[in-house]
Amino acid sequence: MKLASLPQGRDGRLVVVSDDLAWYAEAGHIVPTLQGLLDDWERLAPEVGSLAIELAHEAIPRLRFHEREAAAPLPRAFQWVDGSAYVNHVELVRQARGAQLPESFWTDPLMYQGGSDDLRGARDPITLADEAWGCDCEAEIVVVTGDVPQGVTPEAALDHIRLVGLVNDVSLRNLIPGELAKGFGFVQAKPASHFSPVFVTPAALGEAWRDGKLHLPLHVDINGQAFGRAEAGEECTFDFGVLIAHLAKTRRIGAGTLIGSGTVSNRDPDGSPGRPVAEGGRGYSCIAEQRMVETIRTGAPATPFLKYGDVVRIEARDFRGKSVFGAIEGEVVRG
Amino acid sequence: MKLASLPQGRDGRLVVVSDDLAWYAEAGHIVPTLQGLLDDWERLAPEVGSLAIELAHEAIPRLRFHEREAAAPLPRAFQWVDGSAYVNHVELVRQARGAQLPESFWTDPLMYQGGSDDLRGARDPITLADEAWGCDCEAEIVVVTGDVPQGVTPEAALDHIRLVGLVNDVSLRNLIPGELAKGFGFVQAKPASHFSPVFVTPAALGEAWRDGKLHLPLHVDINGQAFGRAEAGEECTFDFGVLIAHLAKTRRIGAGTLIGSGTVSNRDPDGSPGRPVAEGGRGYSCIAEQRMVETIRTGAPATPFLKYGDVVRIEARDFRGKSVFGAIEGEVVRG
Repeated sequence: MKLASLPQGRDGRLVVVSDDLAWYAEAGHIVPTLQGLLDDWERLAPEVGSLAIELAHEAIPRLRFHEREAAAPLPRAFQWVDGSAYVNHVELVRQARGAQLPESFWTDPLMYQGGSDDLRGARDPITLADEAWGCDCEAEIVVVTGDVPQGVTPEAALDHIRLVGLVNDVSLRNLIPGELAKGFGFVQAKPASHFSPVFVTPAALGEAWRDGKLHLPLHVDINGQAFGRAEAGEECTFDFGVLIAHLAKTRRIGAGTLIGSGTVSNRDPDGSPGRPVAEGGRGYSCIAEQRMVETIRTGAPATPFLKYGDVVRIEARDFRGKSVFGAIEGEVVRG
Repeated sequence: MKLASLPQGRDGRLVVVSDDLAWYAEAGHIVPTLQGLLDDWERLAPEVGSLAIELAHEAIPRLRFHEREAAAPLPRAFQWVDGSAYVNHVELVRQARGAQLPESFWTDPLMYQGGSDDLRGARDPITLADEAWGCDCEAEIVVVTGDVPQGVTPEAALDHIRLVGLVNDVSLRNLIPGELAKGFGFVQAKPASHFSPVFVTPAALGEAWRDGKLHLPLHVDINGQAFGRAEAGEECTFDFGVLIAHLAKTRRIGAGTLIGSGTVSNRDPDGSPGRPVAEGGRGYSCIAEQRMVETIRTGAPATPFLKYGDVVRIEARDFRGKSVFGAIEGEVVRG
């Protein structure tokens, strides 16, 4: 099934969305919010699933679903952590900073704890107080977990994934080096993240969800131009089972935890950093990677970070070219 | 007023507690949970405040309040960040690791984003899967904010503090160096934190709350022995207004955000690291500091980190010696 939250209060109201994202049905008579559903998943998910089937059969009242009206599926959450499953991205960004990639990064996931008190909807503007902070997008896959016991294995962790979606993990590149040097992670360099209009159960993803990875291309456009076409299922060093197990090593995880994959990133077949889409490559899911490739080629980055008025669009398409989660599409505005 | 949550569901149920912590009254007819109160503070806090006055006057039904029965006031929250206001602590811990303290640490607060999906009650056991992780306590002051706008000044930030309490920020010392080196903050080295049974409004703290600091001694006992008696109002380099403003530089903050002070820590009057309580000093609010002082004196730490069966007790007393927030008192158990 596919789920969304329409704006209402601080936590939105839960709706079920049709497979083609064209229709929705209210789910409030079962449970008012997505967090409420996640809190009592075993009991309530079958009921909401029945509603989804009735919606598909046009057996209940339905209304037009407009992606632009959706809040983040979880407008606030009790936990948001972001991994770095695509080590190619980490390596490129480190190179861009003139830093070496430790060998352990191929076996020990990077992961930071993010702010989850303010999660933005897909079409909410990307608010930025100062262009000099170096605003960048990071197009990622995200999962939502149920309760996960401490010490879970990567294999068992996969059973605790309730939903899958997309996230734009907005990053302030020029604030990152200072916070990295302090070692305590990011509180200023990672402002509010933006989430796809719809989250989807692994079962409803069919063949696109296997081995704890989403096997779909991730379309990233900036100002209407193709910027990234990376395959999320390729070169994903750490599947979501590994990321969840990493987080759960010393503590249990509460229902409704959001875990990001890190920026989706592919190399070229010859092992060199990916080429831009315009040159026949798969491009990039963040601007920092393009700047790094430019630096390698010419000695300096050429592509600027995001400016006011720039629009970032992120979407995953299935094998028929249909949008799976809806699009995250936000304009950078002063704020 | 003083507020607590008694165990019920995932978020507890809100009760008002008498000034002497002896009695409570149900507040569920006004709002079921503390998060609900924080979400609508302007409208509901006066009503809950009236209830507190009625409780004080014995004008309503009251029940015995037992600290041991309290959940964390917020059993889960949408944000938990922890600062390092007491730079003496940071300097000692860095020395213990053989690392220098950057000069900027006196002007730019350290702050990490913690997990807020699982906040433990005051008498909940401190669960630890492996003693080799080096389990330590960190006794701290914590505030709860309302909604805070992005870019708030330190002065204006103080008006957004709704509640004050205590926290034991349990830390796994032997996992910290590895995560610090990665620069992404802590996801494994900081397991679930424990909170005082009661949170208190700044107004109800009277003279003990001024300049964005709690001016009370923090009593830390380990296995019934006095371990720390630091003054929380002294040598606090960053008041809570500064910490909130630091967090809000690039993003707004949602109601119910918990912000910790970092380990409370005092030097000796002569500028040397504090002496143990047994030697007439103010002692320490975490074991790592005592180990550092031992290292300075003898070349090696002598005090072990927490073992199964150890009990940590943390409490703030007012000028009459009365407990203000109740005590955090947890035994370390395998789990």
